Amino acid sequence: MSSDATPDQSVPDEVHDELMQATYRALCAHGYADLTMQRIADEAGKSKSLLHYHYGTKRELLVAFLAYLLDRFEEKVDATEGDAPEERLRFLLDKMVPDVDDDGDYDRFGLALTELRTQAPHDEAYREQIAQNEAAIRERFADIIRDGIEQGVFREVDADRTASLLFAALDGARLQRVIVSGSDADDVTCSAHDAPHDVRAALETFVVSNLLGDDHDETSAVTEGAE
Amino acid sequence: MSSDATPDQSVPDEVHDELMQATYRALCAHGYADLTMQRIADEAGKSKSLLHYHYGTKRELLVAFLAYLLDRFEEKVDATEGDAPEERLRFLLDKMVPDVDDDGDYDRFGLALTELRTQAPHDEAYREQIAQNEAAIRERFADIIRDGIEQGVFREVDADRTASLLFAALDGARLQRVIVSGSDADDVTCSAHDAPHDVRAALETFVVSNLLGDDHDETSAVTEGAE
Repeated sequence: MSSDATPDQSVPDEVHDELMQATYRALCAHGYADLTMQRIADEAGKSKSLLHYHYGTKRELLVAFLAYLLDRFEEKVDATEGDAPEERLRFLLDKMVPDVDDDGDYDRFGLALTELRTQAPHDEAYREQIAQNEAAIRERFADIIRDGIEQGVFREVDADRTASLLFAALDGARLQRVIVSGSDADDVTCSAHDAPHDVRAALETFVVSNLLGDDHDETSAVTEGAE
Repeated sequence: MSSDATPDQSVPDEVHDELMQATYRALCAHGYADLTMQRIADEAGKSKSLLHYHYGTKRELLVAFLAYLLDRFEEKVDATEGDAPEERLRFLLDKMVPDVDDDGDYDRFGLALTELRTQAPHDEAYREQIAQNEAAIRERFADIIRDGIEQGVFREVDADRTASLLFAALDGARLQRVIVSGSDADDVTCSAHDAPHDVRAALETFVVSNLLGDDHDETSAVTEGAE
């Protein structure tokens, strides 16, 4: 764990993983508002008292869950170390749009996470963990951009601002998609539904190509960035 | 009204304006969760029964309020007609970041609106109006980009995707800022607090400059885009 949010440090790693994955499934199935310790326990096939024993309250468990999401993200980034900066950047960007074989988890989990995030202004523990997660995401994007500049692969840009743009654009696109996710697809909701892939493609055209210094070769960039 | 969301079409324009502005102030003051018809009535200096008479339920009033936000946005865009495409584009982008003299309304209203938006998956009337608002914002950005291309001022790009990127990036930056808005500014929350201006500056560097065909002149673009 990169965070000290878990109250009971003695929870074995494999039990922790199991309970965190059960929390993910329970959030997808019930959303944030209807999430209960019982439902997480049911998903895990464990007792509710075990959850309370290891994590304390539901709120504390969710802070631990946010820390778990950050760990997972950092593991994914670390696994790309040694790859070319443009590959690492594209890999992370692609991770933020729905998979071809996504069965609705992107929308369901995206909505639950958005609901959890809107609790942050009213809850210091959520706020601190969420701020830490998001700063880490921005920082990892910025690190990769700085690596690319140092290696002479990327043009010299403001790495922090560029990272903020990449993260905010895909975060905003997810927000826009998940809030209309209950709609029957029609012309109006379609642009929101397509926002993550549209934004991913536009980031390829305007940002990745620019970093690589070939931003006038737009046709290939658009094709490459499309789903 | 560009929308038929107001149940009572006979509400006089000036009363409608007054009540919608009172709704805005009540949302800033109390947030979405603690918004009541009484609090809106108090802000307007009117009776609660007048609100119910004109709009029906609080939910119907909020749908009318979302339609009012769209009207105000479209008025702002219309007021720029005849200006150069790059000026119109920059004007709209600047409208989506906090003003220098903002006294906290950007954060308070941004949070209330985010909370309202997360209700959309559970409420068809909210969802339809929100989808309509967001599609209109995307469409207006795309129209301006298409105008610029037709006038030969902008390079040929996919106007819809570019519009999606602009809107999603500033929407995501607002989300990231408002959810940590209760924090004391420290290193971690700072990057979220600065996200709208950072993203605005990055959009100038990567998108506006690219549209204008001078994206290699980065130094001046960054300066121009900064607050």
